[in-house]
Amino acid sequence: MSDRYASFAHTGPGRALVKRLGLPDPPRLRRDRPGDPLIHGPVRLDAAPGGRLREPLAKLLTTAGVELSADTDAAADVEGATGVEGAAGVEGADHGAATAARPVLHGALLYDATGITDSTGLRALFDFFHPLARALHPSGRVIVFGSPPESCTNPREATAQRALEGLTRSIGKEFGRGTTAQLVYVAPGAERAVESTLRFLLSGRSAYVSGQVVRITPADVPEVDWARPLAGRIALVTGAARGIGAKVAEVLAADGAQVVALDVPAAGDALAEVANGVGGTAVQLDLTAPDAPVRLAEHLADRHGRVDVVVHNAGITRDKTLGRMKPDWWDQVLDVNLSSQERINEVLLDRGLIPHGGRLIAVSSIAGIAGNRGQTNYATSKAGVIGLVHSMAPLLAERGITVNAVAPGFIETRLTARIPLMFREAGRRLNSLAQGGLPVDVAQTIAWFASPGSAGITGNVVRVCGQSVLGA
Amino acid sequence: MSDRYASFAHTGPGRALVKRLGLPDPPRLRRDRPGDPLIHGPVRLDAAPGGRLREPLAKLLTTAGVELSADTDAAADVEGATGVEGAAGVEGADHGAATAARPVLHGALLYDATGITDSTGLRALFDFFHPLARALHPSGRVIVFGSPPESCTNPREATAQRALEGLTRSIGKEFGRGTTAQLVYVAPGAERAVESTLRFLLSGRSAYVSGQVVRITPADVPEVDWARPLAGRIALVTGAARGIGAKVAEVLAADGAQVVALDVPAAGDALAEVANGVGGTAVQLDLTAPDAPVRLAEHLADRHGRVDVVVHNAGITRDKTLGRMKPDWWDQVLDVNLSSQERINEVLLDRGLIPHGGRLIAVSSIAGIAGNRGQTNYATSKAGVIGLVHSMAPLLAERGITVNAVAPGFIETRLTARIPLMFREAGRRLNSLAQGGLPVDVAQTIAWFASPGSAGITGNVVRVCGQSVLGA
Repeated sequence: MSDRYASFAHTGPGRALVKRLGLPDPPRLRRDRPGDPLIHGPVRLDAAPGGRLREPLAKLLTTAGVELSADTDAAADVEGATGVEGAAGVEGADHGAATAARPVLHGALLYDATGITDSTGLRALFDFFHPLARALHPSGRVIVFGSPPESCTNPREATAQRALEGLTRSIGKEFGRGTTAQLVYVAPGAERAVESTLRFLLSGRSAYVSGQVVRITPADVPEVDWARPLAGRIALVTGAARGIGAKVAEVLAADGAQVVALDVPAAGDALAEVANGVGGTAVQLDLTAPDAPVRLAEHLADRHGRVDVVVHNAGITRDKTLGRMKPDWWDQVLDVNLSSQERINEVLLDRGLIPHGGRLIAVSSIAGIAGNRGQTNYATSKAGVIGLVHSMAPLLAERGITVNAVAPGFIETRLTARIPLMFREAGRRLNSLAQGGLPVDVAQTIAWFASPGSAGITGNVVRVCGQSVLGA
Repeated sequence: MSDRYASFAHTGPGRALVKRLGLPDPPRLRRDRPGDPLIHGPVRLDAAPGGRLREPLAKLLTTAGVELSADTDAAADVEGATGVEGAAGVEGADHGAATAARPVLHGALLYDATGITDSTGLRALFDFFHPLARALHPSGRVIVFGSPPESCTNPREATAQRALEGLTRSIGKEFGRGTTAQLVYVAPGAERAVESTLRFLLSGRSAYVSGQVVRITPADVPEVDWARPLAGRIALVTGAARGIGAKVAEVLAADGAQVVALDVPAAGDALAEVANGVGGTAVQLDLTAPDAPVRLAEHLADRHGRVDVVVHNAGITRDKTLGRMKPDWWDQVLDVNLSSQERINEVLLDRGLIPHGGRLIAVSSIAGIAGNRGQTNYATSKAGVIGLVHSMAPLLAERGITVNAVAPGFIETRLTARIPLMFREAGRRLNSLAQGGLPVDVAQTIAWFASPGSAGITGNVVRVCGQSVLGA
């Protein structure tokens, strides 16, 4: 569960050795601690002419107490430069005067690209990012906002908006030092639904999320208490006895939810500990039992009358190449990871236990996106989870319920600690952040989906993978 | 341009060393040679109950002269086993009697999964592939046929159909020995539009295409002469003087097309050689010149009256991190790779030069999907190409024109030969086939899109990358 290489690389002698040998240099990621501001340092916000998000974003940032950097020419930024280690000078032929001086370091660079209507307009992105490419604090944030290409009536506009993804993914690979880069597509009319995403992506809660594309659709977003967004909500977490599930229970409880922690009877002790630790209740249940959906529904109906947030985290692996796999291993993995989830959703929805404002959140996997050797069963189940999210989203939208998935990459858990060293190191380092993620990174991403503020987010699959190179 | 490691690994001593050290063992891929059958060895075809593709597929295979293996119990297959090196026994608890004997080796395993209507039905895939997992010839083919999830009215069915992708991608990573694995989604009503895709994926023309998802929509497919599918067609190829473009010209000409080879005036000699070599004509033109679209349109109108196939292959790289990139390098790459393509399409379409049955084919890149360090400009342009394909497809469908893109991974060319050794080796080996592709692999994929038989394929982006691990 510990990344000894990273621990060593963060020591004095370790750092020297890493530098001399040109080894991967995993940065220390900024993670959220209670009382932290959303982000350190000023945030630079600019927009292509005609952008519809600059004003709403500026307002949201100001309300959230974020310091906006003056949107002046970058050369002016050298005034008041800080001396943070590793910061390089502002570059670029047009800013020769600034090259020697140190620029203001920013916490985040935000760009509203919704005004770009064809590919020649993409130059505006270069003009914004080029002089600021090295003017970010460690664990800085890059967020580009665009219009969903599928919402653009003109193909030229759709093309330019789709092109943004090539930029943000490249920036995620290029900027380094813990910087993350995302593309947020905001549908016309969804301007007011952006806040939960803006806060999540700026904060240390998205430390291990990078290179992602998020889509926000118009929705009625209620008033949100950002300190305790889930106050008064009932949240069911399956597979909650340990690992990622236990952390999800903890994070949702910290956000104010009343947690119903569920796991198999065999994990009863660990489960009780988790439930007690978060002031929630424990349910021992084998989800694959034929009567499990009904028993669960009855439990929730009796105790709480509803369930606002359902986190389908329970999952198993039974790895073997297809030719050597036992039929049982196929069946078990498919049933726990996918079919039981479908059965439970059906019963909970049929009985009206998930109210308007409800949240279904599933756990997929990078293996479900890219496939994996020795995991035909697991990858099939996790690809199915993506299908579930995509196919249920439009149906549930009518009932005011969202459905989304996280797809974890290499997360440091008891399970990944058992992977042989060479594979473990490959999984850990082959991503833009050169390290594995922590269970809390997955849990915080789930908490973002769960928030009442995320009413406009549905049908999304977001990877928590440090922008792993592994992909489709 | 040569993969010396693979050449060495294919020698006697090389093979021994590779084995002893556990080094990557790039298989020799089966590539198409004139007169080759579509595939060597019998093809096994089976279907989940209720599948709508088994009958049409069986008919297409028989017409194409492919030997169908009897769809009997796998244990019966041990009769007539061949002695091909490396073939392992049929496995599985239910087939104990067969374990010691060698099974019939198949050229391809085809499964019609359209009958699967919920995730519990996915077990049929295990039952089919498990006993046959090692019963494939080298460079064998796995193709799973499904229904596009977006066409399924029931979310359970959509989920199961989406799950197929996890299976095929895992098989592509697992089976080895040059096997490729694909998922082909055939929309209801598109059963008759499958043939060009079936032929392409079975043949050696798809040697370096693996882990892909192809979507086929209903379309009127004309009679096709599979020996010369492009006979009588006018095909424009940009960037045709060398590399991938020159090979595209060659392959389209071999398929019967009359080729118009285009490149910049500076590449005039090489271009003339290509054009003469394929019995086509050469056009020297700088595509970024303001009058280029009109001049090109006039040339095509005067000489041919139309253009049936447009291959936008011209592309450049100007690599530099964003902070160090000159503005010109951004502009040049975006203009050559994306904006000029849009301008040309617009003029050709406005003037009605692309007739019903026309084909627009663009070249994207893995960098356009995953982003790349030092290629913000290139990745942005190539992501834009994907946007172009997606946004133009529905508009052009009304005119009977398709638009698709190939996204090459590591292809052995003059350009990739210049990449420093370590990066080159990583690019070459980090894919399921453990080697780089050849220009002909990209060209054959383009030829598949270009075929009159591919009327049902539009809005597709297909990677030619050997199932590179690099992804989104």
